[in-house]
Amino acid sequence: MEQFVNANKYVVGVDFGTLSGRAVVVRVSDGAELGSAVHEYAHGVIETALPGTDVRLGPDWALQSPQDWLDVLRVAVPEAIAAAGIPPEQVIGIGTDFTACTVLPTTADGTPLCVETPALPHAWPKLWKHHAAQSHADRINAVAAARGEPWLRRYGGKISSEWEFAKALQVLEEDPGVYARAERWIEAADWIVWQLAGVETRNVCTAGYKGIFQDGTYPSADYLDALNPDFASFPDKLATAPVAPLGGLAGRLTERAAAWTGLPEGIAVAVGNVDAHVTAAAADAVRPGQMVAIMGTSTCHVMPSDQLAEVPGMCGVVRDGIVPGLWGYEAGQSGVGDIFAWFVDNGVPASHTSQAAASGLSTHEYLTELAAAQAVGEHGLVALDWHNGNRSILVDHHLSGVIVGQTLATRPEDVYRALIEATAFGARLIVETFERSGVPVEEFVVAGGLMRNRFLMQVYADVLRRPLSLIGSEQGPALGSAIHAAVAAGAYENIGRAAAAMGKRTVAAYVPDEKHAAAYDLLYAEYRKLHDLFADGALLHTLRHIRDQAIAPQTEATDTAGKEAGA
Amino acid sequence: MEQFVNANKYVVGVDFGTLSGRAVVVRVSDGAELGSAVHEYAHGVIETALPGTDVRLGPDWALQSPQDWLDVLRVAVPEAIAAAGIPPEQVIGIGTDFTACTVLPTTADGTPLCVETPALPHAWPKLWKHHAAQSHADRINAVAAARGEPWLRRYGGKISSEWEFAKALQVLEEDPGVYARAERWIEAADWIVWQLAGVETRNVCTAGYKGIFQDGTYPSADYLDALNPDFASFPDKLATAPVAPLGGLAGRLTERAAAWTGLPEGIAVAVGNVDAHVTAAAADAVRPGQMVAIMGTSTCHVMPSDQLAEVPGMCGVVRDGIVPGLWGYEAGQSGVGDIFAWFVDNGVPASHTSQAAASGLSTHEYLTELAAAQAVGEHGLVALDWHNGNRSILVDHHLSGVIVGQTLATRPEDVYRALIEATAFGARLIVETFERSGVPVEEFVVAGGLMRNRFLMQVYADVLRRPLSLIGSEQGPALGSAIHAAVAAGAYENIGRAAAAMGKRTVAAYVPDEKHAAAYDLLYAEYRKLHDLFADGALLHTLRHIRDQAIAPQTEATDTAGKEAGA
Repeated sequence: MEQFVNANKYVVGVDFGTLSGRAVVVRVSDGAELGSAVHEYAHGVIETALPGTDVRLGPDWALQSPQDWLDVLRVAVPEAIAAAGIPPEQVIGIGTDFTACTVLPTTADGTPLCVETPALPHAWPKLWKHHAAQSHADRINAVAAARGEPWLRRYGGKISSEWEFAKALQVLEEDPGVYARAERWIEAADWIVWQLAGVETRNVCTAGYKGIFQDGTYPSADYLDALNPDFASFPDKLATAPVAPLGGLAGRLTERAAAWTGLPEGIAVAVGNVDAHVTAAAADAVRPGQMVAIMGTSTCHVMPSDQLAEVPGMCGVVRDGIVPGLWGYEAGQSGVGDIFAWFVDNGVPASHTSQAAASGLSTHEYLTELAAAQAVGEHGLVALDWHNGNRSILVDHHLSGVIVGQTLATRPEDVYRALIEATAFGARLIVETFERSGVPVEEFVVAGGLMRNRFLMQVYADVLRRPLSLIGSEQGPALGSAIHAAVAAGAYENIGRAAAAMGKRTVAAYVPDEKHAAAYDLLYAEYRKLHDLFADGALLHTLRHIRDQAIAPQTEATDTAGKEAGA
Repeated sequence: MEQFVNANKYVVGVDFGTLSGRAVVVRVSDGAELGSAVHEYAHGVIETALPGTDVRLGPDWALQSPQDWLDVLRVAVPEAIAAAGIPPEQVIGIGTDFTACTVLPTTADGTPLCVETPALPHAWPKLWKHHAAQSHADRINAVAAARGEPWLRRYGGKISSEWEFAKALQVLEEDPGVYARAERWIEAADWIVWQLAGVETRNVCTAGYKGIFQDGTYPSADYLDALNPDFASFPDKLATAPVAPLGGLAGRLTERAAAWTGLPEGIAVAVGNVDAHVTAAAADAVRPGQMVAIMGTSTCHVMPSDQLAEVPGMCGVVRDGIVPGLWGYEAGQSGVGDIFAWFVDNGVPASHTSQAAASGLSTHEYLTELAAAQAVGEHGLVALDWHNGNRSILVDHHLSGVIVGQTLATRPEDVYRALIEATAFGARLIVETFERSGVPVEEFVVAGGLMRNRFLMQVYADVLRRPLSLIGSEQGPALGSAIHAAVAAGAYENIGRAAAAMGKRTVAAYVPDEKHAAAYDLLYAEYRKLHDLFADGALLHTLRHIRDQAIAPQTEATDTAGKEAGA
């Protein structure tokens, strides 16, 4: 019935990424993706100097320009409509998702502070990967642990420096003037909805995962006062609008936003969302126990569940955080594709890269071909995938990579395969940790760029000892946002029904090979031993400390290359 | 006085290596090296088929041709004399050293069995690196351990598959006919002396280190009977000549050998020796506590001492084994230069190799330059140098390499430096183990090809926290053999006096930098932790076992590259 009604209706999903925004036009009845367009941000990631000024930024800063986001609405949305070849009048809603925590200070009417004071770094939006608030995050965690704040365990015991409170505390303590002028501290995910609908909302997803909003409340004034007396009232900048449910109707497209996008004024604007979490809808994986792994440079795991439990090492558990009515879990592997990329850039000799080129293959493809020809365990290696730290299950970003078993016969493809397997073992440990904590994982669904590597997918199926489902879209977040838009527009009763009609997933696209799985069990046992040997960080933290001391400016910078005497 | 007498006298040293033999002409008075020549073996290492036949060899076989050795006498010795520009009549003696254990079956007159039966593989000399007798060595060790044979501890608890008994047991059990015809089982080091002097001798060095000759006797008939009843009388093939002291006079140059070499008939022929051990004389390092490290693809440590102790992991301790009157210790690091070479071949990207070429440097030199610019510990890494197993102090060739601390910022030069440091840490652990066992190490003397790497030498000085002495010759073994020849000829009273006059060593060529040494102490503490984590082999042996099972012919040979279903 819904499908018949929705046959000539369309929704637009817009995914705001790190370097560009993508719009996709989707048929409401079946989720067909009819056209899409990408707009690159003019300013990209602002890391060295503020646009149009000579103001330099410190190390680990990462900002973005709100104007770039609006340009996506102006450029990519009309282009996507044109590419789809549909009449804009038949679009009934628009939904958006954003990187998170990407957050900015604004006035009470939503004007970004950087519009008025473009030469003040703290007036600009801080991108998710702004990492200059680590010392503030450290205090947030230390004080919360000391006081036994109950919400801390919902985040695996660690609030990230990337999140709302750490970034805001940095603003307060480094530029109190900007902090005072900020009447709002708002996720870009909510700000863009405000621009579309003219209504301020706070989506439950970023409020929960990034804003420490748990059980209907933000951290207490007492706790915040212990961090900094001027921080005690910080939630006043957050709790300025009701926390809105995912798939909810934030408001109606304003005349101004209709003019930007070429879409009809008054159509539904969905509540904001996060790129990873909205992908669950695109994969039609919003039921309890459907774990969606978005596998790219890193992996983000999101999973709805009807069980609330303390799962070691998760990034957060948020009521209604993925879909209303369920607990939403998020876990993560800090390094996956970027470990493979690092190895290809730093560890593969010319003999291999030139052979790959001669065969018309990328180095990744060539190594994959060589690795795939091996029997399980033939390389004699096992590695820990901690080159970028370990989020789940250890929540320790100061860990580092380990590889054991190398001999004089070890070849680059051996190491490449061992690194792929290490990330699969890491995924298995996360799945097992959920299940051991009483949160069943019923299905493992893969989204993201790495799903195109067939060898890697088979390794994951074999290591996990379970079938892998694959999302059926190359633009999962944008499709997910479009699905949320369809719900907000009333075309479907809820996200679950919309996802079932519009989401796409191939169940059991890869199935485990029993022989390989049995062989991997043996290697996984060694991975677990290695994991436990280094999990406490005793050795790896010491190495990092020695490194940090060695490169600290006050220490001697270089070795002399040899002092021969009396020769 | 000796120097005055010896001013116009010369000796010839001949070093028989793996691929060639080298002759050097040395002045008796001061060790001046006046001329040298190298002759490549025509047959090199015989690994696939017997010369002049279609008889194929099994895996891990390595043979040599006695004719190649004689050709060195015929070609290299006269060329060296010519290069030196001295009258051959002024040569008073010749000394030789050989790889060991390189061993062959002969008749009672010294004729190699391969002369008569060139189509029988076991009739040929087995080169030191013939590794096809591992199962025989395993039994030798198991039975000795079970019976509590007292000599076993003199070899760190392990008799190598490379040594005389394992190789002979392989002959007995695989070709009893050859074994029965072998009236002698003789080291090439002694066989070549037999060819020069016409006299069969058995030098104390190979008898002790390779022939299990301890406290004046070979292993008992009871023990050998337990291995194989037909092996009980094996020492009859060894104990056919008195065990002769190093520096001793084996005999006089025969008319036939004089014709080969162009040297005067009747000059002194020194007792045979081993390349590593004779290097101690060349470095004038034959006093108690002078440890000579011959650093190349692997490192061999030899050291005289007046203390007899059980030092964990040594290759052997032999009375008079380096110089008469002292205990001679040998220890080893299974992989050193070959680990660096493996890394350069397998782990360095084109970005580095092409930059090296553009700078006119080898990849090793370029990596060294980059590594040398770092502060100690800056790379954040620590590695275990076990890629080729660990001889000292663990005596476990089934261990493998480990590296920890890698991040997405780790660069090839970081790993290169960490591998260099790992071998230095390994050397420090050996030195400390000697000292903890009550055998003082007074001086660390470096010989071998790696001494030319100034950065590496400085790392060793800093890590060892002691000055490094360097041998003053590029042809240490041949010079050492010449020194032994001078003693055999009576020009010096003993090896110590000859070495003092003719050997060359720069004391304290590298001295530790106190700041670097202190920083390395911290890294070495982590190396020790890592060493102890993996020393029991629990994890590394399992990985090797998994590997061996994976590549065993009966198992499935390859992965399928991915089985996508229903996509």
